[in-house]
Amino acid sequence: MTKSKQKPLFITFEGIDGCGKSTQAVMVYKLLQSQGYKVKLLREPGSTAVSEKIRDILLDKNSKISDITELLLYEAARSEITAQEIQPALKSGTIVLCDRFYDSTTAYQGYGRKLDIRMVKSLHKVAALGIVPDLTLVFDVDIPTAFSRRGKNLDRLESQSKAFFIRVRAGFMEIARKERRRVKRIDAAQPIDKVFDDVKKQLSKKLKI
Amino acid sequence: MTKSKQKPLFITFEGIDGCGKSTQAVMVYKLLQSQGYKVKLLREPGSTAVSEKIRDILLDKNSKISDITELLLYEAARSEITAQEIQPALKSGTIVLCDRFYDSTTAYQGYGRKLDIRMVKSLHKVAALGIVPDLTLVFDVDIPTAFSRRGKNLDRLESQSKAFFIRVRAGFMEIARKERRRVKRIDAAQPIDKVFDDVKKQLSKKLKI
Repeated sequence: MTKSKQKPLFITFEGIDGCGKSTQAVMVYKLLQSQGYKVKLLREPGSTAVSEKIRDILLDKNSKISDITELLLYEAARSEITAQEIQPALKSGTIVLCDRFYDSTTAYQGYGRKLDIRMVKSLHKVAALGIVPDLTLVFDVDIPTAFSRRGKNLDRLESQSKAFFIRVRAGFMEIARKERRRVKRIDAAQPIDKVFDDVKKQLSKKLKI
Repeated sequence: MTKSKQKPLFITFEGIDGCGKSTQAVMVYKLLQSQGYKVKLLREPGSTAVSEKIRDILLDKNSKISDITELLLYEAARSEITAQEIQPALKSGTIVLCDRFYDSTTAYQGYGRKLDIRMVKSLHKVAALGIVPDLTLVFDVDIPTAFSRRGKNLDRLESQSKAFFIRVRAGFMEIARKERRRVKRIDAAQPIDKVFDDVKKQLSKKLKI
């Protein structure tokens, strides 16, 4: 049974690889489900047939891709998941949790690849069909900790240099500073349960949990 | 041996499917090559490893793709071929012939899919890295003739309705009207050799042939 008068809510989980966001997204998904909420968990790029094909191109270590193409492919995957999954789910009153959304592109392609931030954001508007997350959690952790948490088989993006990830992390912090109302920093260097406590604190401002 | 003091030149071949542009592009390629010009023939979407993968997604009849995703994928394929092939070739003084470029996206996704033309053109600026064709030939032919020239195995775009192609054709004519200096209409209902005569007339304004 779903909770009565449930409002649709779009929550995104952001941060550098190894920050623990995917784990936390699953924990939130299970929590909300156990409480009777209608909830959907998606990941970006991916979650639709076409987006998964785009994901394969993007993450394949053998792919040689220019920075602008990379940016456009992320936006293409985004517009697909938005049109096929996010928009219909929100319209039906479902809570949507998304593991990465356009802030990742601002951080990775904008700050990481040093592309023009204004141009990058103008593409978000096209690809996200005007949808803005109600709440964005940025899981912040220092680079050595993040690196130590990753597996050994790194994909094309994970294989970037330490300097790249320092720029990406700083990018996420800049986004959080600029959009204080929507974007909340979570200290992800803490143990998993402490991180989850902080996540729940933020969620409780939007939902009865 | 290449002609001395050859200027780089970027020529695009446009029109609806079945208009004969690919045949004419090959004829121009052979003509320029036989005259000693350094010339490269490319096709869009495609011509690089990543762009061919994107092409496969776009043209696969089983792909369900939203209009905005389709637009972004064409732009992604474009930015790749521009960065990897067109830009370096032009820099090295080569004449580049391209079978389709951004006017196809304006016509098909803008006019055909009825997306916002201004938004579509803003993406061209990102994807084409600021490069504008020196000459664009639009091969104009009526829809029944175009349809009769196509093969039997139609791809996802070719499978669109007649109404769609009427909008696309009108879109190309609109582009030709708006950018008279760059874009030239060629009557492609004529026999191949007559069409080629008209093509050569346009080329001769840019090149010694």
